[in-house]
Amino acid sequence: MEFAASELRIDSRRMKKDFEELSRIGATDDGGIHRPAFSQAHLQARDWFVQRAARMGIESRVDGAGNHQAVLPCGKTGAARLMLGSHLDSVPFGGRFDGALGVVAALEVLETVKENGISLDLDLCAVDFTDEEGAFVGLMGSRALSGRLPRQEVDHPSGSSDEFHRALARAGISPESIFSAAAATGTFAGYLELHVEQGTRLKDAGADIGVVTGIVGIRNFRFNFNGRADHAGTTPMDRRRDAGLGACSLVLQARQRFMQNFPGCVVTAGNIDFRPGAFNVVTQTASVNLEFRADDIQTLDAMETAVYEEAGKAADDFGLDLTIETLERTVPVHLDDSMQKALTSATEKLGLFEIHLPSGAGHDAQAMALICPAGMIFVPSENGASHSCREFTRWQDCVSGANVLLQAALSLAGARIF
Amino acid sequence: MEFAASELRIDSRRMKKDFEELSRIGATDDGGIHRPAFSQAHLQARDWFVQRAARMGIESRVDGAGNHQAVLPCGKTGAARLMLGSHLDSVPFGGRFDGALGVVAALEVLETVKENGISLDLDLCAVDFTDEEGAFVGLMGSRALSGRLPRQEVDHPSGSSDEFHRALARAGISPESIFSAAAATGTFAGYLELHVEQGTRLKDAGADIGVVTGIVGIRNFRFNFNGRADHAGTTPMDRRRDAGLGACSLVLQARQRFMQNFPGCVVTAGNIDFRPGAFNVVTQTASVNLEFRADDIQTLDAMETAVYEEAGKAADDFGLDLTIETLERTVPVHLDDSMQKALTSATEKLGLFEIHLPSGAGHDAQAMALICPAGMIFVPSENGASHSCREFTRWQDCVSGANVLLQAALSLAGARIF
Repeated sequence: MEFAASELRIDSRRMKKDFEELSRIGATDDGGIHRPAFSQAHLQARDWFVQRAARMGIESRVDGAGNHQAVLPCGKTGAARLMLGSHLDSVPFGGRFDGALGVVAALEVLETVKENGISLDLDLCAVDFTDEEGAFVGLMGSRALSGRLPRQEVDHPSGSSDEFHRALARAGISPESIFSAAAATGTFAGYLELHVEQGTRLKDAGADIGVVTGIVGIRNFRFNFNGRADHAGTTPMDRRRDAGLGACSLVLQARQRFMQNFPGCVVTAGNIDFRPGAFNVVTQTASVNLEFRADDIQTLDAMETAVYEEAGKAADDFGLDLTIETLERTVPVHLDDSMQKALTSATEKLGLFEIHLPSGAGHDAQAMALICPAGMIFVPSENGASHSCREFTRWQDCVSGANVLLQAALSLAGARIF
Repeated sequence: MEFAASELRIDSRRMKKDFEELSRIGATDDGGIHRPAFSQAHLQARDWFVQRAARMGIESRVDGAGNHQAVLPCGKTGAARLMLGSHLDSVPFGGRFDGALGVVAALEVLETVKENGISLDLDLCAVDFTDEEGAFVGLMGSRALSGRLPRQEVDHPSGSSDEFHRALARAGISPESIFSAAAATGTFAGYLELHVEQGTRLKDAGADIGVVTGIVGIRNFRFNFNGRADHAGTTPMDRRRDAGLGACSLVLQARQRFMQNFPGCVVTAGNIDFRPGAFNVVTQTASVNLEFRADDIQTLDAMETAVYEEAGKAADDFGLDLTIETLERTVPVHLDDSMQKALTSATEKLGLFEIHLPSGAGHDAQAMALICPAGMIFVPSENGASHSCREFTRWQDCVSGANVLLQAALSLAGARIF
């Protein structure tokens, strides 16, 4: 029997079994998962990847940054690689779909291609990138692979260096090995990533599929306010230099400033830390982790100026010293037009309704976009919830997304009628 | 040779050696100490107490709450006990004098009395109370001894119960044994505590000694704001329920309200905790530890109402749920007039200048005041700094304080000319 590659579909039941298996690793009571990079649950999910690939007879390789690649060779000498995938780590107490869906779908696409004996011009590869969410270094695996990971970020991870080094060791890698993951020029013909939208624009538009046009740039800073530790019972209010007041003021004022000056943009203070942190001691040092995002550099620069101003004012108001650490600066990325076209065409073939939209979240695709044409497929997030146990995408939407991934991959890899 | 007990003085050099020995236990690079209750450094300081008492031939007993008592018996059947002391634990990264000075001076008074063979009508006892600073349960040891420690506080310590139980075990005690420390009625004839002022009133008045009239009441609460975890990049500002905003708002508004409505009083937010605490997730829950103090119950009640109002407003402003946990409520305590008189008289005998003043800080004396006449001696804190590595009291002031303690103890215990 002869049929067109365009008629090929992924196996929804098999992919669902995989997804559910994976969702049990690091599962929390509330239906979410807790799988921060290098946690026991994450290491278990990494093992799952290797075993899942082995089950279909494909060997996985792990590089110096801990990225797993399972490669289905096309048999042609010197063929470039079309990479599909995402990440298996989660934010602390996150959802089941973020990252995991893209990895499960990539493996499913490989198995579909393999079991149907489809002949391609490119090696097809499923990838699980390391620490996308930045438990230590955001987009660590994909930026290492693209050769664009600044050494400074590895030297100054979130949390302590000791903790980071112990975490790396658990995955059998080291701060030095990370840089060895950089791929040789021309290794990749392209990269495709299926991901949940994590917003409500697809639902608002009634779309099945989002074709991503670009990814916002993120700037992430730690503002350290330094005051003076004093006894909470004996130090008059007007003689205090309470670092906590500066930190709290920055959190509130940055929000207000953004809502006034940058409508539609986001700023988030995701963590704050008071030291010594005893109820009977005035806070000596207080740190705020604060990040903001925009899809052009001019806006990011203006935001940075505004946040620095607010931090300076907060320090002045409470007689504090201030130091600022840059934790992350990613540039906004435009995703390749030919990839967008391949995804749109796959969506149309499948009779799905798609819209084009930028991504407000960072993704491994933005690192891969620096070394090869990259494309992203979004599927709708119910209620827009993400980085939360409430994260949910209907299974039929997951399947649609995986079929778009399959069809785009087949077309990009030159699948023939057989 | 015959001399009056009033001519007796403590041995300044011996006490200094003790103080310096103790200051090395848990010493930090900046000249302070880090000796939270049940930390390794604290356990070492506890051992130091036992060895120091043994060195002068006095055995120490430890009770079910971990309090050490070294008793110098007067030899009279059924004699009550005059207790002198303070605590050896510190706040995290605190100073060398807070607590430690009172314990060292108590031991020195015992040795002075013993080596001079002074005959007394009361047993004299030096005490090291457990967890005065509240690493887990504030004033744990002294409140257990006075039989007024609520079981609820032992069941709900600061930090986790597991951590607390492991900490207790390190000192060979348990949650149950704590309550066995309660002393029988009539055990104590009185309690005297030497302590650094931790404020600037003595310095401001040019006084050598403060005779404490009473101790403020403290109320300590945890305000838990509950919002919704959302993706920091894809959730519009106006759709967020960011718990961190409520927490920061309470910290700032409580301060403002106190400065307006309760001039001269103090409110402190010593800790704050964002969960999940990832930079790319909107904060789901945020907790603020907040305490305030006053020397009368009416003011404390008014403050509690005001703080609850501010917390409610903060929750409403950002669409959050709010729960409030009471961590501590101590009542203001008046210190016994006869003890104040004994201290004043000792101070005058020594030719020192004293003032009477209330204490803005909580002390073990407030627990002991519930079961026997209790008195407190303050010595000046340079710059008023305390709960900080900058805590400092001139040695000559420490010696003056110890001599007041000695003279008051001799007079209360009925020392005769010999």
